[in-house]
Amino acid sequence: MYDPSENDLRFAIQHTIGLDQISHLDAFADVSPDLVDAVLSEAAKIAREELAPCNNSGDIQGSKWNSDFTVQTPDGFKKAHDALSAGGWYGIEIAEEFGGQALPHLISAAVGEMFHSANMGFSLCHLLTQGLTHALTVSASQEQKEKFLPPMAEGRWTGTMNLTEPQAGTDLAAIKSTAVKEGDHYRIKGQKIFITYGEHDMAENIVHLVLARAEGAPEGVNGISVFIVPKFLVNDDGSLGERNDVKCVSIEHKLGINGSPTAVLQFGEDKGAIGYLVGEENQGLKIMFGMMNHARFGVGIQGLSISNRAFYQAKEYASERVQGRPLDRNEKDTIDHHPDVMRLLATMRAEIEGQRGMSLYGAAALDRAHYETGDDKAFWAERSSLMVPIIKGWLTERSLNLTSDAVQVHGGMGFIEETGAAQHYRDARILPIYEGTTAIQANDLMFRKTLRDGGKAVNSLLAEIKTDAETASKVDDANIANAAADVLRGTKTAQRAVEFILSNTLSQREAAAISVPYLMMMGTLTGGWMSVKSAIAAKDAMNSGTWDQTFLDAKISLAQVFAKHTLPEVEKYANIVFDGGASIEAMAPEIL
Amino acid sequence: MYDPSENDLRFAIQHTIGLDQISHLDAFADVSPDLVDAVLSEAAKIAREELAPCNNSGDIQGSKWNSDFTVQTPDGFKKAHDALSAGGWYGIEIAEEFGGQALPHLISAAVGEMFHSANMGFSLCHLLTQGLTHALTVSASQEQKEKFLPPMAEGRWTGTMNLTEPQAGTDLAAIKSTAVKEGDHYRIKGQKIFITYGEHDMAENIVHLVLARAEGAPEGVNGISVFIVPKFLVNDDGSLGERNDVKCVSIEHKLGINGSPTAVLQFGEDKGAIGYLVGEENQGLKIMFGMMNHARFGVGIQGLSISNRAFYQAKEYASERVQGRPLDRNEKDTIDHHPDVMRLLATMRAEIEGQRGMSLYGAAALDRAHYETGDDKAFWAERSSLMVPIIKGWLTERSLNLTSDAVQVHGGMGFIEETGAAQHYRDARILPIYEGTTAIQANDLMFRKTLRDGGKAVNSLLAEIKTDAETASKVDDANIANAAADVLRGTKTAQRAVEFILSNTLSQREAAAISVPYLMMMGTLTGGWMSVKSAIAAKDAMNSGTWDQTFLDAKISLAQVFAKHTLPEVEKYANIVFDGGASIEAMAPEIL
Repeated sequence: MYDPSENDLRFAIQHTIGLDQISHLDAFADVSPDLVDAVLSEAAKIAREELAPCNNSGDIQGSKWNSDFTVQTPDGFKKAHDALSAGGWYGIEIAEEFGGQALPHLISAAVGEMFHSANMGFSLCHLLTQGLTHALTVSASQEQKEKFLPPMAEGRWTGTMNLTEPQAGTDLAAIKSTAVKEGDHYRIKGQKIFITYGEHDMAENIVHLVLARAEGAPEGVNGISVFIVPKFLVNDDGSLGERNDVKCVSIEHKLGINGSPTAVLQFGEDKGAIGYLVGEENQGLKIMFGMMNHARFGVGIQGLSISNRAFYQAKEYASERVQGRPLDRNEKDTIDHHPDVMRLLATMRAEIEGQRGMSLYGAAALDRAHYETGDDKAFWAERSSLMVPIIKGWLTERSLNLTSDAVQVHGGMGFIEETGAAQHYRDARILPIYEGTTAIQANDLMFRKTLRDGGKAVNSLLAEIKTDAETASKVDDANIANAAADVLRGTKTAQRAVEFILSNTLSQREAAAISVPYLMMMGTLTGGWMSVKSAIAAKDAMNSGTWDQTFLDAKISLAQVFAKHTLPEVEKYANIVFDGGASIEAMAPEIL
Repeated sequence: MYDPSENDLRFAIQHTIGLDQISHLDAFADVSPDLVDAVLSEAAKIAREELAPCNNSGDIQGSKWNSDFTVQTPDGFKKAHDALSAGGWYGIEIAEEFGGQALPHLISAAVGEMFHSANMGFSLCHLLTQGLTHALTVSASQEQKEKFLPPMAEGRWTGTMNLTEPQAGTDLAAIKSTAVKEGDHYRIKGQKIFITYGEHDMAENIVHLVLARAEGAPEGVNGISVFIVPKFLVNDDGSLGERNDVKCVSIEHKLGINGSPTAVLQFGEDKGAIGYLVGEENQGLKIMFGMMNHARFGVGIQGLSISNRAFYQAKEYASERVQGRPLDRNEKDTIDHHPDVMRLLATMRAEIEGQRGMSLYGAAALDRAHYETGDDKAFWAERSSLMVPIIKGWLTERSLNLTSDAVQVHGGMGFIEETGAAQHYRDARILPIYEGTTAIQANDLMFRKTLRDGGKAVNSLLAEIKTDAETASKVDDANIANAAADVLRGTKTAQRAVEFILSNTLSQREAAAISVPYLMMMGTLTGGWMSVKSAIAAKDAMNSGTWDQTFLDAKISLAQVFAKHTLPEVEKYANIVFDGGASIEAMAPEIL
């Protein structure tokens, strides 16, 4: 049975990142270590007992579309949804006045990791609903919030995002769906694709957030507005009214996340679906950008989650499968005693440790960006907006490698679907694509987050990593000091790469061509930084008596593994940054 | 419609590698450029017209097991098999006296690339049958050859390899199947799993090559014998007799290659299946090793093939999909004009070019190992046996990245099964596992091919690459010279890494822990070497008038792309070799 990494999360929150990152903020005055413990332990329980059991079966069974335009989720999903609803888990980030628990991201990120690692196909509904409640919290009117947030906090209603159309994926400027004003509402018409949980049977109502063009809107991205389009219209007393003019005309047959329905939604086959404008007309892109950090960060956590789930499965298998006699050993033994199996497992685990630090660091940064004031707010806004594309890009790209390594540990059995390892490999493949492909994250990092501010944000991060690494390289523990020295060297390499990018010797297109390697370099380095932070936290906790010695030793060993096996990628990517742009720009489609 | 890379193959055979590698050998005196052209063009036609059309449909439909123990292959497979049979394609490597065409590997490798890229699930039957005919050619008696080779050359019968049992995967010492002598034959009992095309409906008979233990055999690998076990017994006149006591009790539900049936075979539920000993008792492992180079090399080609197929699909999609306005451009355009899409496509294509060179170089090396005499024979035996684990390991590992990149080019559409990109991603995942996992290849490279001969073989290869790169770095073409300089630098790094490995400062277990990075380093470097060779060949062919200028220019540009985007991995892997062993050896299963 899958067991989420509750203790690792607790340690990382309390020691690697530190609850003091957010406990000074008024909004989180009540967030004590005891509360963290209680929340993590309850989330772990529900992940273990309700979500994990229907993960593989949900993949096999899949969601089914019916000719009456309904969608049936796999066995166990409704029960898991009811358990999440009853526990208040849909409302953990929602303000208390709307029925939520207003917990910090630092905690909800940990909860998200556990949910997604237990069952990513199912937990997508949670992710999307959180995305929607976040968007409404930031951009909706008080009346809209009062109407829509409380039922979503309770899990009675769930949420979706409706951006993509067949001709408009990455390019939102190409959106064609229309909205015609009619009294206090609009009539929406158009087709949306790739709508996760766009239709399902777990909740009473579904609240669609839809991008469309109001009549007379300018062309391109400046003519997009955002509308709330509920599946069932909502009466003034909050009860459900008529069925709105939106229906699910099919769901996709996908490589992975088969438990989750990915819907094609048809809006307005009849008179047009009734929708309510959020904010003002033509402000849609701004509103969407306002929630993007949140959604992209959430997908980054999914990357960590699916890697962790795959690692867990590989570790379990390797601890049971006997095959051959390990080198230098006299007896047959389980395969985790073979050096290369250990290499695969240890490098996975080491990256996961670094990624978890990044996820929680990013979460605390988002919290501080929201609740700090003055210069601190500005600093954390800058830092969090720098971290989001790195976290989304690197954690999801690496999930492809880590879930692949987990298949490899299984040998031939990994290729057989019944084993379950292949599911994680298939599930992971969507992560570097949705909520903005890796190229989009890398563009964001290169142009908006590096070139636009002349490298201020990224150089500030690198300076901090450098200071930390310098300090850590003098720590009285050879393993930590050695790993920190590697991080320090990597930081200097990264600084040179940033300097090169800022020197503007590259054309815009060349800069775009090296933006993914640049992102991967930054991700690797940040992961290394966090793994050293984790090792130092472990060293500091040695004498506290709270943590098991083996548990703490592991964090120090893993920092070594990260430094020696993953960190060499920093230099590789830096070399591509220095030297790779021109060769791509010299290519042309016709010579491929 | 899929179009295999016929021209690239023709160019690589004639110019990058050169037909003169083998044309001086008596066995291949008839192999003229015209013959190469004719064979490639016929193979391309059959790949395009018969194999490719049932690739995606074969994946969707899959092979089906029936309760009467038969297996039904997908629609189109039987027709494709008949076309291959009629064209003599099952016999291209078989000696003429047994009805084959006795073509060199240099050509059959090119044919294999086209077949596997057109339809890997189908072509596995071809691969396995070739593996079997190769094994029988090397190890069977004249009588056995006369009986079994001609029908396989005609495709009337196909072949399988029966090694794996549930408890015996990588560890062949654990094989339990038994063979009891009974007159001129043996009675075989046991269960074999993962038997590719172990049962199907395309051929009249199936010839199983089975590893089992004769009565009284010693334990471990020294007690294994090899038996021919035909599905239908064969009468003296070659006609089919009784059904043998072997049946397919199920087939696997797999992540990919779903067109191909992967059978569980039960031998001897009744009196025991009748089998004929190949060679002598207890010589099984030696016989298997004798054919392993061939089989592993074939799987390496599959890696190249599936990458090429995925590349082709991504390139086609990118040339049609319009999305957004490329940077610095005024108009919307197809996505292959976006720098990061071009980066993905160009790096894929560049690696494929290098891989194709490796595949054909390895093929020529196998031919020369077989047909040269004296010192030359010894040299090429050493060289080919060094190349095989590198080709198998690197080409298959990289196929995971390249098929993944092809999905990424498709964006969200790549995750939808109907698009077809996901199939290649799923199909590829078996390649680093079967015929010896990457760890097994890396162990072979580290211990048998590097440490055992004190680095003789690998240093000889590196010296040759160095000489070539030095020469090329002075060529009168800045792009080639620059790429060659990168290869030269990589070679020096690799030489230092080999020196480090030979210095014996590592324990055996540490050496095993860095063996995969060592293999990946060697693969990357060899690929870079080949891409420079290809560029030089292109430059030399400029004035011949035979080749299109754009076609030749592409080879030079691609060498640049390889040098700047893939070659930086050499240093990364070398750093892991230098520094990565101890951190893995310091880990223990209980601290994971």
